Amino acid sequence: MNRYALIVAGGSGTRMGTETPKQFLSIGNAPILMHTIKRYFTSDTKVSIVLVLPQEQVDRWHQLCIKYNFNIPHHIVFGGTTRFQSVRNGLNSIVDQEGVVAIHDGVRPFISKKIIEESYTVACEKGNAITAVAMKDSVRQSDPLKGTIALDRSHLYSIQTPQTFLLPQIRDAFSKATHDRYTDDATVAEQAGGYAIHLIEGSYDNIKITTPEDLAMAEAILKKFDY
Amino acid sequence: MNRYALIVAGGSGTRMGTETPKQFLSIGNAPILMHTIKRYFTSDTKVSIVLVLPQEQVDRWHQLCIKYNFNIPHHIVFGGTTRFQSVRNGLNSIVDQEGVVAIHDGVRPFISKKIIEESYTVACEKGNAITAVAMKDSVRQSDPLKGTIALDRSHLYSIQTPQTFLLPQIRDAFSKATHDRYTDDATVAEQAGGYAIHLIEGSYDNIKITTPEDLAMAEAILKKFDY
Repeated sequence: MNRYALIVAGGSGTRMGTETPKQFLSIGNAPILMHTIKRYFTSDTKVSIVLVLPQEQVDRWHQLCIKYNFNIPHHIVFGGTTRFQSVRNGLNSIVDQEGVVAIHDGVRPFISKKIIEESYTVACEKGNAITAVAMKDSVRQSDPLKGTIALDRSHLYSIQTPQTFLLPQIRDAFSKATHDRYTDDATVAEQAGGYAIHLIEGSYDNIKITTPEDLAMAEAILKKFDY
Repeated sequence: MNRYALIVAGGSGTRMGTETPKQFLSIGNAPILMHTIKRYFTSDTKVSIVLVLPQEQVDRWHQLCIKYNFNIPHHIVFGGTTRFQSVRNGLNSIVDQEGVVAIHDGVRPFISKKIIEESYTVACEKGNAITAVAMKDSVRQSDPLKGTIALDRSHLYSIQTPQTFLLPQIRDAFSKATHDRYTDDATVAEQAGGYAIHLIEGSYDNIKITTPEDLAMAEAILKKFDY
């Protein structure tokens, strides 16, 4: 079955306090987004990579690709105003009717080959594979009577990406969605599509880089990561 | 009302991959634990500081205090085998019957004076004040029928410390607890004591340092922190 990687890179620099969009900031010797794309390419050189970027960032991305001599083949699709719209634009750009697609945050460069491979394999078998780790923090939930109540963290999972789906399943779910405020694609599949969700084990290294402090942590993770 | 700070520093170096217990590792120019204690001391020099340490680490702590010329007054209490037992030992060491106690992780050195002050004030007024931030990640919860289900993250709070209580309230809750597997003190107050919990706004800088990558992030946060 054909494999697709839909890399969603919609962020601006707002939370970073920089003018540079966070996905274009460098860790090690290259922009974060190049690390992320490279992880998918080196996991399987036959994967088709779709990069969803805000339209106004495309010129800059092309300049960065020249500057860094970045030659990994990828298609560019313009993002929307919400994450949901960006992913939908990416899905619409894939002509294949079958296939399996990994939807992955552009600012999560520390995704391992093992997780990438498992997410495709499990999604082919079960329809989807959602990367998750056990919750490390205590969590409370709003409660109409008590203000908040403690949740048992041993029953909670913190959700990461990739979130990988058979194309017909995720297309069906997106077509049935009645709003665009979903914070992740598993929730679209579950709540709009009615599909059961299958978790796979992620990694605490698989961080989403959104603040300057995350960037410092990323440099530390990069040092131990096996490229 | 007398103020107490119960600093819980029970950790070993296991997750750090170092022989040095994590609270003794340095950031900037001093061990993490000294930064944490200093935050409480500089917020109010009249606060009584109780440090809960594993018995086998006490000698090493005293040596560090000499080496770093660390003179902030504090009482040392031996920890137990669980966090619950460590906190209970700390509470038992306080003779005052009234007072208000902030229970705080030794490896959270980036607690602001503003949060410290607010936690004491709110706890005096409402019985407790639990530091929390809005959840940034998508979360799923185990479900007997569906495997897992998405939770609405806009209703979720990630719990930090300080968790500050009127002494009679937290003592009463600890005395009624029927097990020692609680992951935080708010849950003891709520589930064993039956007390309503009051959240106050924490900070994303108020991280718990438990891995080498957290340490890199901590150095980055330290640079912007206003001592």
